[in-house]
Amino acid sequence: MSRELRVIPLPGIPELVDGDDLGALLVEAAARAGGLEDEDVLVVAQKAVSKVEGRVVPLDGIEPSERARELAGATDPRRIEMILREAREIVRTRPPLVIAETRHGFVCASAGVDSSNAGGPDLLVLLPVDPDASARRLRAAIRELVGVDVGVVVSDSFGRAWRRGTTDVALGVAGIVAVVDLAGSRDSAGYELHATEIAVADEIAGAAQLVMGKTDGIPAAVVRGLGVDGDGRGSDLVMPRERDLFR
Amino acid sequence: MSRELRVIPLPGIPELVDGDDLGALLVEAAARAGGLEDEDVLVVAQKAVSKVEGRVVPLDGIEPSERARELAGATDPRRIEMILREAREIVRTRPPLVIAETRHGFVCASAGVDSSNAGGPDLLVLLPVDPDASARRLRAAIRELVGVDVGVVVSDSFGRAWRRGTTDVALGVAGIVAVVDLAGSRDSAGYELHATEIAVADEIAGAAQLVMGKTDGIPAAVVRGLGVDGDGRGSDLVMPRERDLFR
Repeated sequence: MSRELRVIPLPGIPELVDGDDLGALLVEAAARAGGLEDEDVLVVAQKAVSKVEGRVVPLDGIEPSERARELAGATDPRRIEMILREAREIVRTRPPLVIAETRHGFVCASAGVDSSNAGGPDLLVLLPVDPDASARRLRAAIRELVGVDVGVVVSDSFGRAWRRGTTDVALGVAGIVAVVDLAGSRDSAGYELHATEIAVADEIAGAAQLVMGKTDGIPAAVVRGLGVDGDGRGSDLVMPRERDLFR
Repeated sequence: MSRELRVIPLPGIPELVDGDDLGALLVEAAARAGGLEDEDVLVVAQKAVSKVEGRVVPLDGIEPSERARELAGATDPRRIEMILREAREIVRTRPPLVIAETRHGFVCASAGVDSSNAGGPDLLVLLPVDPDASARRLRAAIRELVGVDVGVVVSDSFGRAWRRGTTDVALGVAGIVAVVDLAGSRDSAGYELHATEIAVADEIAGAAQLVMGKTDGIPAAVVRGLGVDGDGRGSDLVMPRERDLFR
């Protein structure tokens, strides 16, 4: 892992809607940036994936429960209701802030339910049902379209305990390792390393965020030069409950 | 933030000891990689900084307390004793794992005390006393040596609640923003963004880790193409206690 890395933004992807061929749009955007290469990692914002997969719901018609009304404070209780429906468990609340575990096992704000960049003021974007499957489909589509083997990361911005600000992390992964396990590796002086797992897919997602920004509507980037081919999953990045000191 | 980014490893820096001129060694390593440019962000591993600042202590002569012996399990209680001394508060323990808040306010494993890559089997590396000051000194040294204005990030590998694996984060920052606040920004459709803070310095540290690796002894990397000049601090990335839902 000591080659130079390039992180290339893929602008020019139009506003996406249910059924759009995201694989083809990514290939076109990448072609404008010089094309995709084997071992590239294509990072795609969760919101883009969710939109083409129809994971957008209108606030209209959501009937908030009593609990949603309690947690909503002065905000829209229909949004909180959708968060509660997307959550497997509520981890913390400070109305109107809800930190929840999603059905995938991700612990994040609002169970991943988002109203920014949703395509309209009365719409909510939900996380993909299976972000790893989404990543695998995009990887297969790109191989089909241009015959190139890329890794794919479906990314989202998560807050962290104890630290300010969000960093982008990997929800879905295909074609690369998600966590590099250095157990048994030795450092440059020959001593065995103890802190052994590096969440490379999360670092890749964060690197891509630096060129995608949050307001300028660039939903994808290519990370080139890594050499992290593998068969990882976004679910590899979820701390198993029995190892989790913070649940 | 939509230009291409390059992440350039700086190999060839020798094993460091107390008093080494790290600024000069970084400039030499960067010269071999083509030289530094204004607006580059130079990411330097905390361990390199700690070593030249003399933050290495021998296990010999550390007298473990009763509490250190309890927490150590089958591991060396002198190491746990040093963790307790470096900690302002113990956040979680599962012997021999200790998650602690350092005097800087960072919540991390072992209060940042590390025995891997320490330069010897009976040595511990502690975090810099003031990582922001370390970053500012390196920035000033580089301006002095080659007349170039770089940002500096002093990075370390931290675990996270709920997610597997470490990602590199910024402990010390100079010459760049640490957290980009998008409050009041609007998304591409014109709606105001709510999740407003992006921890860019942490994402920069993570991107650099991808080329630095953990076993191959590359203690620094250059991130080029960002345009994040500013006056941030590593301490900007510490969640204030009153906003922290997880303390």
